[in-house]
Amino acid sequence: MNIVLNSPLDMHLHLREGTMLQDVAPFTTGSFAGAVIMPNLVSPVDSLEKVRRYKEEIHAAGNSDSFAAYMTLFFKNYTRAELIAAKDEIIGIKLYPAGITTRSESGVSNFSTIDETLSLMEEMEIPLLVHGESNGFVLDREREFLTVYERLAETFPKLHIIMEHITTAEAVEFVDRYPNVSATVTLHHLMITLDDVIGGLMEPDLFCKPIAKRPEDLESLRDAVFSGHERIMFGSDSAPHPRHKKECCGCAAGIFSAPVALPMLAELFEDVGRLDLLQNFISDIACKRYGLHPPEKQITLEKISWEVPELYGKVKPFGAGRTLRWSIAR
Amino acid sequence: MNIVLNSPLDMHLHLREGTMLQDVAPFTTGSFAGAVIMPNLVSPVDSLEKVRRYKEEIHAAGNSDSFAAYMTLFFKNYTRAELIAAKDEIIGIKLYPAGITTRSESGVSNFSTIDETLSLMEEMEIPLLVHGESNGFVLDREREFLTVYERLAETFPKLHIIMEHITTAEAVEFVDRYPNVSATVTLHHLMITLDDVIGGLMEPDLFCKPIAKRPEDLESLRDAVFSGHERIMFGSDSAPHPRHKKECCGCAAGIFSAPVALPMLAELFEDVGRLDLLQNFISDIACKRYGLHPPEKQITLEKISWEVPELYGKVKPFGAGRTLRWSIAR
Repeated sequence: MNIVLNSPLDMHLHLREGTMLQDVAPFTTGSFAGAVIMPNLVSPVDSLEKVRRYKEEIHAAGNSDSFAAYMTLFFKNYTRAELIAAKDEIIGIKLYPAGITTRSESGVSNFSTIDETLSLMEEMEIPLLVHGESNGFVLDREREFLTVYERLAETFPKLHIIMEHITTAEAVEFVDRYPNVSATVTLHHLMITLDDVIGGLMEPDLFCKPIAKRPEDLESLRDAVFSGHERIMFGSDSAPHPRHKKECCGCAAGIFSAPVALPMLAELFEDVGRLDLLQNFISDIACKRYGLHPPEKQITLEKISWEVPELYGKVKPFGAGRTLRWSIAR
Repeated sequence: MNIVLNSPLDMHLHLREGTMLQDVAPFTTGSFAGAVIMPNLVSPVDSLEKVRRYKEEIHAAGNSDSFAAYMTLFFKNYTRAELIAAKDEIIGIKLYPAGITTRSESGVSNFSTIDETLSLMEEMEIPLLVHGESNGFVLDREREFLTVYERLAETFPKLHIIMEHITTAEAVEFVDRYPNVSATVTLHHLMITLDDVIGGLMEPDLFCKPIAKRPEDLESLRDAVFSGHERIMFGSDSAPHPRHKKECCGCAAGIFSAPVALPMLAELFEDVGRLDLLQNFISDIACKRYGLHPPEKQITLEKISWEVPELYGKVKPFGAGRTLRWSIAR
């Protein structure tokens, strides 16, 4: 038995730059039809010129024929002219609260100063992608940020707001309340809780932001995704770090799941008897919510087991050493 | 201004074995009059013979003249004869739920099979020291174990039960409910929350069991200790691991605070204007609750600032690199 996926999309991806980009890009460009590229580079992608340059770099690193790099701008206040110029070359604008995660130092520190740009985005139908965490206690950050989401969703009812990498039951409930709100969920947040990160040994390879939460949160995310929630789509948040930045004192946040995302998702959906919903989660919802027409690309998964390697280049993948049931046919 | 502490005691200490014991013992034997020595060695200290041998090893490593090594047996079911023989050479028996922390594999897995030993301990007035965690979700373990504490405290009302290294507001409330229950609190649980462990980078040096909890829990512990709670005493849970076991993938749990405990506690009590309660916390409560008469030993803290080194031998101490206001006079 094979699974055939039509134009799978990763709606939240970190490809980094330089040699890391070259190392990791093929894992996504080879097995996805498109991905939303996060703009938090060392120098944030905050101009059309940077978008173009980064997109070229990505295409040079991967397979550009059958892969759409859906570019994002790093949120700051943009003028109407800037947005008009950029609109057709981006899928949306990614907002980071200042200092909340890797390379977000130049993010938004005062949410009362951004309404003009948001209003322009609403008018021009440019989606707003949000890393929705406060700078409070680590387990409360997503919940605390819901008040910001609430204000945005109500003030800009036609702005498409995407709650990125949601991790809590409260966030799932929130998505239901506003028709202009969507969400992405990662692979790992469908699989782990905080227990996996710090319940036994401390596991740097499962350390990510937002941190995995409680068992009830995991269940809520799984319930939503495995029941075919109409506004929750897949975004891996795959975020490679070189090995030495994960093992030294003070480990960097990020899980590299690009190479295993499709086989593992197939397992998860199969385990709950809902393989019929995988296409939805991996592509159709995103196409509908964003109005996308990705490159036609069929990816076939074969039931051939394989062991996830310990390293891809310098990066340890999610699930390293684990035997998976589904392989991507080459 | 100096602070003079009379016979400071560390009521929960891991000294390990072999060269590690030799490396770390002097930090405690030099500045404390006594310490309760945990029995979770590679081969648990579960016989009088092992108690004696370990005590000799400790005295050989440290200063035995002015230091009392209060030995503990590793809890298992003991006979009346064994307990009678051991009684005068131990301060109590330490119970670990099986597999709950470092080297606890041979701990208790079935709490319904231990009543006979507990009854003997109650009769002979041998205290029961408990690592009180369930094997549930990492943040719920202490709370879930309260039902076990409750049964023990009610079934054996004359058994002195010590809740070791408590970390939650619920545990503080629990102590208040039973006159036969005491608790120890570590230095680090008076200072950090989970935010410090995983809120920014992942910090292996702040990884310990029980894991640090929420801000409300920290506040509750601080409120209890800094108001002179009559049944909560100091136990560092200082637990050295060689550097390479803290930085490699899958870090070991444990914080090494012995060298900094007294100066840092002085800072904490001074910061809240309650230096008058330090003697209580560091010795008097333990003497009263356990009926101890430790060696007479005055430790003087001088207001001379110093920087905590990055390493003591192979072990990174709590507060490495931090400048402390109080020094132990030598």
